Amino acid sequence: MNYVSTTTIAPAVTPFDALGLTDITAKLEDNVLLVTLNRPRKMNSFSEKMATDLVRVFEFGDQDDRVRAIVLSADPSAPAFCAGVDMEEVARGSSLLGRKEDSETEHRDPGGQVAMAIYNNRKITISAVNGNASGIGLTALQCPFDFRIIWSGSKMTIPFVRLGIAPESTSTYLLSRLIGQSRATAVLLSGAVMLPDSPMLSGLYYEVLPNRTDVLPAALKLAKNLAANASQISIAYSKGLLHHNGSSVEEQHLLESRVMKLVGASEDAAEGAKAFMQRRKPNFPDTPNRNLSPWYPWWKVTDVRHPKSKL
Amino acid sequence: MNYVSTTTIAPAVTPFDALGLTDITAKLEDNVLLVTLNRPRKMNSFSEKMATDLVRVFEFGDQDDRVRAIVLSADPSAPAFCAGVDMEEVARGSSLLGRKEDSETEHRDPGGQVAMAIYNNRKITISAVNGNASGIGLTALQCPFDFRIIWSGSKMTIPFVRLGIAPESTSTYLLSRLIGQSRATAVLLSGAVMLPDSPMLSGLYYEVLPNRTDVLPAALKLAKNLAANASQISIAYSKGLLHHNGSSVEEQHLLESRVMKLVGASEDAAEGAKAFMQRRKPNFPDTPNRNLSPWYPWWKVTDVRHPKSKL
Amino acid sequence: MNYVSTTTIAPAVTPFDALGLTDITAKLEDNVLLVTLNRPRKMNSFSEKMATDLVRVFEFGDQDDRVRAIVLSADPSAPAFCAGVDMEEVARGSSLLGRKEDSETEHRDPGGQVAMAIYNNRKITISAVNGNASGIGLTALQCPFDFRIIWSGSKMTIPFVRLGIAPESTSTYLLSRLIGQSRATAVLLSGAVMLPDSPMLSGLYYEVLPNRTDVLPAALKLAKNLAANASQISIAYSKGLLHHNGSSVEEQHLLESRVMKLVGASEDAAEGAKAFMQRRKPNFPDTPNRNLSPWYPWWKVTDVRHPKSKL
Repeated sequence: MNYVSTTTIAPAVTPFDALGLTDITAKLEDNVLLVTLNRPRKMNSFSEKMATDLVRVFEFGDQDDRVRAIVLSADPSAPAFCAGVDMEEVARGSSLLGRKEDSETEHRDPGGQVAMAIYNNRKITISAVNGNASGIGLTALQCPFDFRIIWSGSKMTIPFVRLGIAPESTSTYLLSRLIGQSRATAVLLSGAVMLPDSPMLSGLYYEVLPNRTDVLPAALKLAKNLAANASQISIAYSKGLLHHNGSSVEEQHLLESRVMKLVGASEDAAEGAKAFMQRRKPNFPDTPNRNLSPWYPWWKVTDVRHPKSKL
Repeated sequence: MNYVSTTTIAPAVTPFDALGLTDITAKLEDNVLLVTLNRPRKMNSFSEKMATDLVRVFEFGDQDDRVRAIVLSADPSAPAFCAGVDMEEVARGSSLLGRKEDSETEHRDPGGQVAMAIYNNRKITISAVNGNASGIGLTALQCPFDFRIIWSGSKMTIPFVRLGIAPESTSTYLLSRLIGQSRATAVLLSGAVMLPDSPMLSGLYYEVLPNRTDVLPAALKLAKNLAANASQISIAYSKGLLHHNGSSVEEQHLLESRVMKLVGASEDAAEGAKAFMQRRKPNFPDTPNRNLSPWYPWWKVTDVRHPKSKL
Repeated sequence: MNYVSTTTIAPAVTPFDALGLTDITAKLEDNVLLVTLNRPRKMNSFSEKMATDLVRVFEFGDQDDRVRAIVLSADPSAPAFCAGVDMEEVARGSSLLGRKEDSETEHRDPGGQVAMAIYNNRKITISAVNGNASGIGLTALQCPFDFRIIWSGSKMTIPFVRLGIAPESTSTYLLSRLIGQSRATAVLLSGAVMLPDSPMLSGLYYEVLPNRTDVLPAALKLAKNLAANASQISIAYSKGLLHHNGSSVEEQHLLESRVMKLVGASEDAAEGAKAFMQRRKPNFPDTPNRNLSPWYPWWKVTDVRHPKSKL
């Protein structure tokens, strides 16, 4: 995960078979990692273990060169894509909303940890929302993705102000950036129930599809298309530039110029130019692990997972 | 008002009856403070006294625990919600656009003072736009609110470039954030007259209603719903997180985690969980005055009202 | 160009007749500078010389008091507004994507140089997109403008990830600000072909017109209207406030208050008030060159064109 400085504190990445997933499933096909929320009897609600599973599988996807795109969806036999945090688990003393014994600064929102593992991922990420979504089902499980594809009948709400709890999963940062502060404020402070075509959510979705069963195939189609036809280093650098803007247009110009020079000298650029001239599809050889410059990431990288960590 | 450090320089908050309002009226009902622009013969145009009145009444609303939401509307007998700054008052030497005797750095835009009193308010704020709005009627009196509800027939314009005056009321900050810089630039530089369903304003309004007389009831309905059913501290913290983002997603994660821990230990959270389990409406006891952590506000708070004040 | 500190390193501005334009044409009429991409046989593709020409002509427009608005369009006999970077020139060793002999930090993206010359311009800028646009035709030649007017049939794409190249022209900065990060990410990472009415581009265009031949007349009409009726210093200050926000609403309030005081004391403000009272069109005398305060620009100005320049 690229918010951990890979030279100094990178954890060994667990191999796929040893991820120990229970609350989600994952499989790799055509260079696309398909992740599925797997708690249908609990309406795919968000558990502590689901948080751990998701961070692990997105870290794996970020690090493994075979993975060129990651799709998240949910077991469709449940009545919801994700019904929010598992309130029964919270009632049993889960750390989801903070352990009693933790001090004020020690808690680390598990939804935020998941959101960062997705937002900081160097691969294409797509959320395939095939049902209703409440709270964390709309924050962590949608906002940090590159693309969101949804069934038009999905009912959605972020009901935190009506429950006396706090907004989470970095939604107060991401939602304003994604769709503007007017819509973000309305969504977070009203607690309203919305459909994907609500004006309050305009701009959030790449595709809104009329049939629930169309969502996953559409997401996989986009994922496989980009896995096959897009340069992995062009994607990694583009996401870096989008997520880590300079403080002025001049600074961004210097960042983009340096990236342009680095990417321009890559095998992917040579292959891209050749394929363009030969009017054929490219076959890009570069991967983030092997071919990103040591200059990447150029922004300050902080591991905020440890309870004592600061910025 | 929370941009004044409450520990050191907080003014005593004037009681409701002693606010001395003349250019607006205010009444408190069902925990909702209804503020009404009250210069119908002047097309509800913005006066120096209206600025003072608005700052006072929003400070009162911020500080008084009985107030759980604030609605701004305008006397409907006027042909406009607000026809802009009172140009006759300006011609008579009002300070609205700057006093002659003030130095270049001493002027404090009254529209900006009003905008900050609204934007920094810890309670829900709703602008109920029941008629045409020009200049400050669209900047200070709409942009800093959490929600905007409007009559579809309201004609609106920000004509500053066509009058040779400067944009104000922090509109050059708020408008880009609310609806994006493309729309904000078009609105501010064209001086065009727009209706609420103009693509240039897309995203600005929570509701656009076909009848002028529907606007205030819709705003009061939303205000009373949130006053009755939303946690005041959840709202205050959510607004703080939305308005004062950390400089990275990691920093926002730490802020949200701390807020989550604080709110999670509150009486409101306990009541919210209990009401959820019992499938009943909550009855939240906490208020910003009594129950916000001393850590709030976590951002640097500056009083910029004094002519010599700096950041 | 205002990102060059005019007191210390301003280049002498070339007179109009000596600009040496070859890949674009330019003419001045009714205080509007009309710039036309002029490589119809090359589908108006972007060349090194076009970059130089565009920077020169926008610098001229910024500095010459006769110019009150600048419109960019393209020779309509070509099948595209701009087909992207001239790949044949790149194949011949052009600097467009970086010279081999330049070090990693020496390259300066020519598209970014053009984008900054437009974005930092103190005059009204309008892009009149009368045909298809690829890559730089949608980044440098649309994003940095104040207004974009387009033919509804224009096909557009930013195909960089599919070509193994990097995003440029400060598009990773501007696009998120203009239309939000959700849409910007989708546009940049999908490489999809879009029409102007695509939800992915919502908010980007001031006008979308059904006939290709309507685009330039509509742009000229808007340009001439603002050239005739808008205050040049009100526009310059408004653009400065929009592009160089303070770090908080309080800081923006201080900036706006100072601008208000400066503009309020101008001849334009006096003329604006007089014209308003007399119900006639104004005739604004001020210009940026003569009448902006020495305080403008109040932000840090950096020339990043030199290969060794840093921020």
